[in-house]
Amino acid sequence: METMSAEPKARLLEQTFFHRGRVFDTSHDIVELPSGIRLELDVIHHNGGAAVLPMFENGDVLLVKQYRHPAEEELLEIPAGRLEAGEDPAIAAERELEEETGFRAARIEFVTQFYALPGYSREILYCYVATGLTPGKLNLDDDEDIATIRLPFAKALELVRTGGIKDAKSMMTILLVNAERGPSNAE
Amino acid sequence: METMSAEPKARLLEQTFFHRGRVFDTSHDIVELPSGIRLELDVIHHNGGAAVLPMFENGDVLLVKQYRHPAEEELLEIPAGRLEAGEDPAIAAERELEEETGFRAARIEFVTQFYALPGYSREILYCYVATGLTPGKLNLDDDEDIATIRLPFAKALELVRTGGIKDAKSMMTILLVNAERGPSNAE
Repeated sequence: METMSAEPKARLLEQTFFHRGRVFDTSHDIVELPSGIRLELDVIHHNGGAAVLPMFENGDVLLVKQYRHPAEEELLEIPAGRLEAGEDPAIAAERELEEETGFRAARIEFVTQFYALPGYSREILYCYVATGLTPGKLNLDDDEDIATIRLPFAKALELVRTGGIKDAKSMMTILLVNAERGPSNAE
Repeated sequence: METMSAEPKARLLEQTFFHRGRVFDTSHDIVELPSGIRLELDVIHHNGGAAVLPMFENGDVLLVKQYRHPAEEELLEIPAGRLEAGEDPAIAAERELEEETGFRAARIEFVTQFYALPGYSREILYCYVATGLTPGKLNLDDDEDIATIRLPFAKALELVRTGGIKDAKSMMTILLVNAERGPSNAE
């Protein structure tokens, strides 16, 4: 009874969870690769995140500024939040957009998805661009202290290039929207 | 004795390490923001990573392909590795380049640095581009099973756009090198 799988798979030999947290869980895993190499590593388990670049008709974008304790500084980011287990990331992006900026979007378009730290975290970040923005209801979580900042897309792109925006999901979304739109970023 | 700090700082009220691992440690922290809001969160402590895009004179780049257990699949990435405590990331980039691809570089230029997951990880990724490549000595770690792939920069950029490259540091470096070079990427 051989498996019909096209490519040889790695085998999970052992998985021991040693931490269950509010945002992520952590396990110690032992894996055997098809080559026979055994890996032993700690793994972060996370539902994934949704991030969204809100873009107005004139090309301005909205960023949020908040203190990030792991970075020990305030960071400029696009609105984002954690997925509920099994949640559609586009729905989460829509929710986080309204909660953090007070805007609703007529259109939420997929931009990219990526592994932020595939060496030890299972987290996938799903990135969107939101257009057709209309005022909705601001609704920050109790532990959120967030300021919104509106600026031209070209200025956001400059901040990505010069280190003023240093958060992966925000940089990636702005760079990819720019790459799709070509050298003129006025709209 | 008031502090002379220009902006109000967050205060770390409590920090309890509950895990010390080979790659990262994990703590449970309680922080008070200047606004008075208290945050309670788990934090990943990591020395940081260095990543490097090796680029040949004709514009071809080298990528590495390896199985990533957290992603449960093989990923195409630029060469990268973890910093030793206090290590200069450019030195680490040079070392990882030679260990993973067998090439040495005449020039290692800084491209960007970013927080991969600033909501819960302290890890900063430092990204470089390496040019002036000459054969050196391949020296994989015991638990590394890595294939190198040479392809034109334009093809790598296409893979970033279409989901064939889905690792943050690799996407970011390729996108930023592209943004600096402008629409023509032939070299």
